[in-house]
Amino acid sequence: MEGRVLSIQSHVAFGYVGGKAAAFPLQCLGYDVDLVNTVNFSNHAGYGRSGGSKTSAAELESIFQAMEFNELLRPTRVLTGYIPDAEALSAVARLVEKLRKQNPELIYLLDPVMGDAGRLYVSADVIPVYRSLLPLSTIITPNWFEVETLTGISLTDLHSLRLALTKLHKDFGVPNVAISSIPLTQWLSETLPNAIRPPTVSESEHLLCITSSVSNENSPSDVHAQCVPLLPGYFSGVGDLFSSLVLAHYNSSLESSLPDVEVPPFRTSLSEAVSQALTKTHAVLCKTFEYSERLPEEERLVTDDEKDAVEPIRKVRRMRGRELRLVQSIDIIRSDFGDATRRLERWSGFWENL
Amino acid sequence: MEGRVLSIQSHVAFGYVGGKAAAFPLQCLGYDVDLVNTVNFSNHAGYGRSGGSKTSAAELESIFQAMEFNELLRPTRVLTGYIPDAEALSAVARLVEKLRKQNPELIYLLDPVMGDAGRLYVSADVIPVYRSLLPLSTIITPNWFEVETLTGISLTDLHSLRLALTKLHKDFGVPNVAISSIPLTQWLSETLPNAIRPPTVSESEHLLCITSSVSNENSPSDVHAQCVPLLPGYFSGVGDLFSSLVLAHYNSSLESSLPDVEVPPFRTSLSEAVSQALTKTHAVLCKTFEYSERLPEEERLVTDDEKDAVEPIRKVRRMRGRELRLVQSIDIIRSDFGDATRRLERWSGFWENL
Repeated sequence: MEGRVLSIQSHVAFGYVGGKAAAFPLQCLGYDVDLVNTVNFSNHAGYGRSGGSKTSAAELESIFQAMEFNELLRPTRVLTGYIPDAEALSAVARLVEKLRKQNPELIYLLDPVMGDAGRLYVSADVIPVYRSLLPLSTIITPNWFEVETLTGISLTDLHSLRLALTKLHKDFGVPNVAISSIPLTQWLSETLPNAIRPPTVSESEHLLCITSSVSNENSPSDVHAQCVPLLPGYFSGVGDLFSSLVLAHYNSSLESSLPDVEVPPFRTSLSEAVSQALTKTHAVLCKTFEYSERLPEEERLVTDDEKDAVEPIRKVRRMRGRELRLVQSIDIIRSDFGDATRRLERWSGFWENL
Repeated sequence: MEGRVLSIQSHVAFGYVGGKAAAFPLQCLGYDVDLVNTVNFSNHAGYGRSGGSKTSAAELESIFQAMEFNELLRPTRVLTGYIPDAEALSAVARLVEKLRKQNPELIYLLDPVMGDAGRLYVSADVIPVYRSLLPLSTIITPNWFEVETLTGISLTDLHSLRLALTKLHKDFGVPNVAISSIPLTQWLSETLPNAIRPPTVSESEHLLCITSSVSNENSPSDVHAQCVPLLPGYFSGVGDLFSSLVLAHYNSSLESSLPDVEVPPFRTSLSEAVSQALTKTHAVLCKTFEYSERLPEEERLVTDDEKDAVEPIRKVRRMRGRELRLVQSIDIIRSDFGDATRRLERWSGFWENL
């Protein structure tokens, strides 16, 4: 069984987050996807109200055990996302440990979904379980806040960013780190090489994406980065889509086959996969943004905490209008963007002057 | 929201039955799909052992209520499949009744999944609930056994088939009936018009597909049919795939726009949709069959009840090797087969000499 992804994350009936954001792109790119649902909800939490239930650790174990008995645990790739409690996450950790032992070539993308912008939205006892899972991963895709949460390091300057990446690579044994949707603060922008820094003056309206890959233990990691324009408004499921595309496009034998690598590693398997994922995610997001802008006014009322509190349907409609236009993006997902790829560039000098 | 399907059926982590067989084709054909899972299992029942749990009626209600509160119940089409107990099915029935009332244009495909080949695999108290749901449907896709179960009529000759269809149309108010995968028994074969009867002598190696549509209350229904070659072995999820494709291709305004209708109704919206669905389902099945035939011998051991009982993994491996090659069939699903379509032909004289 080649090209089979085991995806363990949330399920929502309506809209595109978790497994609903990940499965379709993976399937369109030719992967069979085994889908284990860690929750079964009506919609994502951003709507304010949802129905359904979480899958208990016992239910997850029951599913994993039957799959093992039936010899159905044969993924070539594993993707884990939102798993809201420590007991369920521990069940997943035991499974991944078993799969990793059976298949050292397994590609495991761990998205440590814990929170965003300073706010944790899982139970805090999940954090140590995620730390214990890190050595099993091939790639992790934390956001800025999740890097801080995992490492315990506040990211305030280049020095702390280097420390955090070093901790992830050396202490936690993660070979590949991809951090997307990083707000481009002044210190970050000033640190960037010219090739990566946005060309316009509107630097605050960009997001940064960084990858860091370890090719051998004795060298510092290879760091790549790229900026993408920030689209106004909050869209859910973007990280889940991005992670699924990174996993889909990751080709671990790429280093040796790249034609234009003068001195390795000008590109890495990770920087290549993330370039594809970033390009496609941004294109889907643009399509979604354009769609939401064309909706009638009452379907796209701007965030206003006071008005939203009085009239919760305002937020509901805003959320609904911003669900990813995923199905409509089938051609984006399946395209080869060629020269139009938003390619990550090598961050030369990242580790210099330590 | 145009082209939005609410699909309520089973979920399996591994393989392609229920929602896993339906969602991908619908999405590839451009539909947003809201997926409500009536069970969350590791794999389909044919493997002999599975893990996971059924969704309770209360959980389904909780999902439906939150969707209603969030104004997310706006499908243009509804698809219901495997719903294993009467209480859960009643919750679904109440929802569909509400949706039908809100939108008389709603296209509801009801697949009354109850059993096959003389064996019921849901609780018997589901049957009266399905009967009460029939008047809400636009299309139903029962198999031969399910037609018998719903109508209480044994299908043994043309007369009983006419009676059963009349009962479905007149007593239960179903406008469109599509029955696929009918074993071509001698009486059925002898009844078929020449244009539909398989041309070869190997009539026993074909399956028949029949559609019956009511265009106005005072005329008998328009009956169409076609045969497809039978592939050896049992493949799961084929009916679920077929139903999703019928729903995807159903265009209720087709009658008035068909170019080559000399005397209406030489084609119906249903016969057209089923022609597409039959063609694509058969092509996916051929691909799956060819794949399963190329597997190593131990992965495709033939059914042998005695050996299977001693060594359950025999059956498990057979099931696994026969999972639909759905993801690999993306081009089949998205194709326009044109002249290669297995088009249903009008069964002229079906209602004659009553």
